Amino acid sequence: MKIYPQALEELISQLKKLPGVGPKTAARLAFDLVRRPAAEGEALARAILRVKENLTLCSSCQNLTESDPCPLCRDPGRDSRLLCVVEFPADLAAIENCGAFSGRYFVLHGNLAPLQGSGPDELRLERLERRVRETEVVEVILATSPTVEGNTAALLISERLSPLGLRLTRPACGLPVGADLEYMDQVTIRKSLEGRGTI
Amino acid sequence: MKIYPQALEELISQLKKLPGVGPKTAARLAFDLVRRPAAEGEALARAILRVKENLTLCSSCQNLTESDPCPLCRDPGRDSRLLCVVEFPADLAAIENCGAFSGRYFVLHGNLAPLQGSGPDELRLERLERRVRETEVVEVILATSPTVEGNTAALLISERLSPLGLRLTRPACGLPVGADLEYMDQVTIRKSLEGRGTI
Repeated sequence: MKIYPQALEELISQLKKLPGVGPKTAARLAFDLVRRPAAEGEALARAILRVKENLTLCSSCQNLTESDPCPLCRDPGRDSRLLCVVEFPADLAAIENCGAFSGRYFVLHGNLAPLQGSGPDELRLERLERRVRETEVVEVILATSPTVEGNTAALLISERLSPLGLRLTRPACGLPVGADLEYMDQVTIRKSLEGRGTI
Repeated sequence: MKIYPQALEELISQLKKLPGVGPKTAARLAFDLVRRPAAEGEALARAILRVKENLTLCSSCQNLTESDPCPLCRDPGRDSRLLCVVEFPADLAAIENCGAFSGRYFVLHGNLAPLQGSGPDELRLERLERRVRETEVVEVILATSPTVEGNTAALLISERLSPLGLRLTRPACGLPVGADLEYMDQVTIRKSLEGRGTI
């Protein structure tokens, strides 16, 4: 016999599909939803449905948007000569939040993860090339992750774009601000020394 | 300007209300929902709505159920002379899962948490007393948490039920199976010594 009523079991099993949510967490989330007023559960359910209905990809930068082109691509105040290539929309948000970049973006919606069966085809490179050809881009910042896979993806993209005669760059690798040198990995320390600058 | 489209911001803000879900986790969950096929998002939304529509409390044991009385209260194979009082439905499930209890339950749906403004009124003690009076209960196991608040709740309940002349018990405190004595807290070790048994 199931211990929880079926509606609750179903909710727990649906919540378990979320990333990083195991059976215990799923049950905790489910009980929390049960305990709260019906309106709050409905608000969450509606938000989920709305996201599935309303979101599309911006035809220019491929970012998630409710209007095409997206607000970032429509904004006339941004520098169209700079194009920052990121793997996922969350990466775009992270860069946007740092406040130091005012160019345009391109979201790959994928990374190289050979073990998960994600190869170069997942990176939408034709779209990227078209995007670069169509506009007045001067520099492409390849902001894929500073990992083996991200570096490989950056290499792959730079090979594809190099015939266009653009400046191709990559964000600096080094010590994160506030880090404790003692606990930093060797590769990062090596990178930080290689990239050292004068004070 | 908001970085994410509004539908996504709304979903993130709804997900953030879940327990233990901060802004980063909420964004990760939201992106996962966006990435998945629409049907899966709908299944989650429907499960949330269904739980709010279909679940009620069992009039006998107060556990969450889709049918009243609940399957546990309807089951003729269970021992009605034993009543186990727990704080929350998740506690009931934990005891049920251990497989060592075949009596009936009563769910308080609350605990004593004076700092959160949760006092004795939250414990539904009248209902519990009625439940005990109406049936052939011989022993009440007070399985509230082994904490100061849980112990106080157990004391409160036992004071209320003692005029009925029942056996009132509490689960044993001691070392959790598989624990490392070295890392066990002093109070638990003391309890385990006080309650020691012959081999």
